[in-house]
Amino acid sequence: MLHHPKSIINLIRNLGRLPGIGEKTAERLALHILNNPSAQAQQLALSITHMKESVRLCRKCFGYSDHELCTICGVVSRNTALLCVVEQPADMTSIEKSGGYNGLYFILGGVLAPMDGVGPEHIRIGELMKRVERGEVKEVILATGTHVEGESTSAYLAQVLRGYPVTVSRIASGVPVGGDLKYVDQVTLKKAMEKRHAVE
Amino acid sequence: MLHHPKSIINLIRNLGRLPGIGEKTAERLALHILNNPSAQAQQLALSITHMKESVRLCRKCFGYSDHELCTICGVVSRNTALLCVVEQPADMTSIEKSGGYNGLYFILGGVLAPMDGVGPEHIRIGELMKRVERGEVKEVILATGTHVEGESTSAYLAQVLRGYPVTVSRIASGVPVGGDLKYVDQVTLKKAMEKRHAVE
Repeated sequence: MLHHPKSIINLIRNLGRLPGIGEKTAERLALHILNNPSAQAQQLALSITHMKESVRLCRKCFGYSDHELCTICGVVSRNTALLCVVEQPADMTSIEKSGGYNGLYFILGGVLAPMDGVGPEHIRIGELMKRVERGEVKEVILATGTHVEGESTSAYLAQVLRGYPVTVSRIASGVPVGGDLKYVDQVTLKKAMEKRHAVE
Repeated sequence: MLHHPKSIINLIRNLGRLPGIGEKTAERLALHILNNPSAQAQQLALSITHMKESVRLCRKCFGYSDHELCTICGVVSRNTALLCVVEQPADMTSIEKSGGYNGLYFILGGVLAPMDGVGPEHIRIGELMKRVERGEVKEVILATGTHVEGESTSAYLAQVLRGYPVTVSRIASGVPVGGDLKYVDQVTLKKAMEKRHAVE
């Protein structure tokens, strides 16, 4: 790397800070950018700056958005009676990609983790309550992760929501579709057994 | 990807144009940039623009440089009697990394490929002759690739250089160091046999 001019080394260093990009890959990318038209490099640089300036949190769901309302909350065809509570914007994206949901979302911004000092006041539980109080939501689907913190956050939310006129549900957990049983961990298998359902 | 705001999609598309970066990786990188300090993103964007504006070709070797002379041609401690001819700047970088060479370089900018319409006038053969005519060089080391075009370009250069008072040499080819013979291709093995040398 030290055999390159300083401006190339500088770009290699900055690219190397991205996750999963080692020095070799960063070097390859930098030389690719160098050897390609300036317009392309300019577009890349501009899109970084533009994204950082443009993206804010959606007023309603706290997901990423270029406008006051995100592309999901702003759509009239969605079922506003369903509210899916997730940890992070990436979780919302995953559920959207699955195509199995047509309701709205609410992004908590984390999970309760008392050991790390994350209490109810550090994630958007107050905002969630306000959203539910507005009365449009009929069912709250708790879709936090199935790890310990995700489960306990869901349990906490279920308890807090008990006083509201909404159905509270939790996403199913079990053997992943396409999964070979011998590769599934024991805790998941135990859960899959417990939550077995009658075959019609 | 369509579930992101437009400005994020835009960055994902631009990152996805880089070699070896698929849509999933581009998405991961874009969200990383989004979630990290603006200063870091700004640095990355600036280093792209700055590199494209700053890098030019070294006046002497035609390698990449931020100044008129590159970091190798501008160093007084190098052996100016040796000139290593390579195809591309990346080849120079590889040889530099090996640490086994202390002379100067000359970047041809390609190889002769008559089938693709690349003749002697399309690569820097004229410039190489001018460099040799200046008289400082005592040995020209031909370090083009060991593929067909690299070999024929070396052969052509050796012929053209015959009229000049310089030694012309070619890099050795054979079994790579650390190579297990059973994984080495037959052409390489044949060459390694032909070019065998006495053990002292």
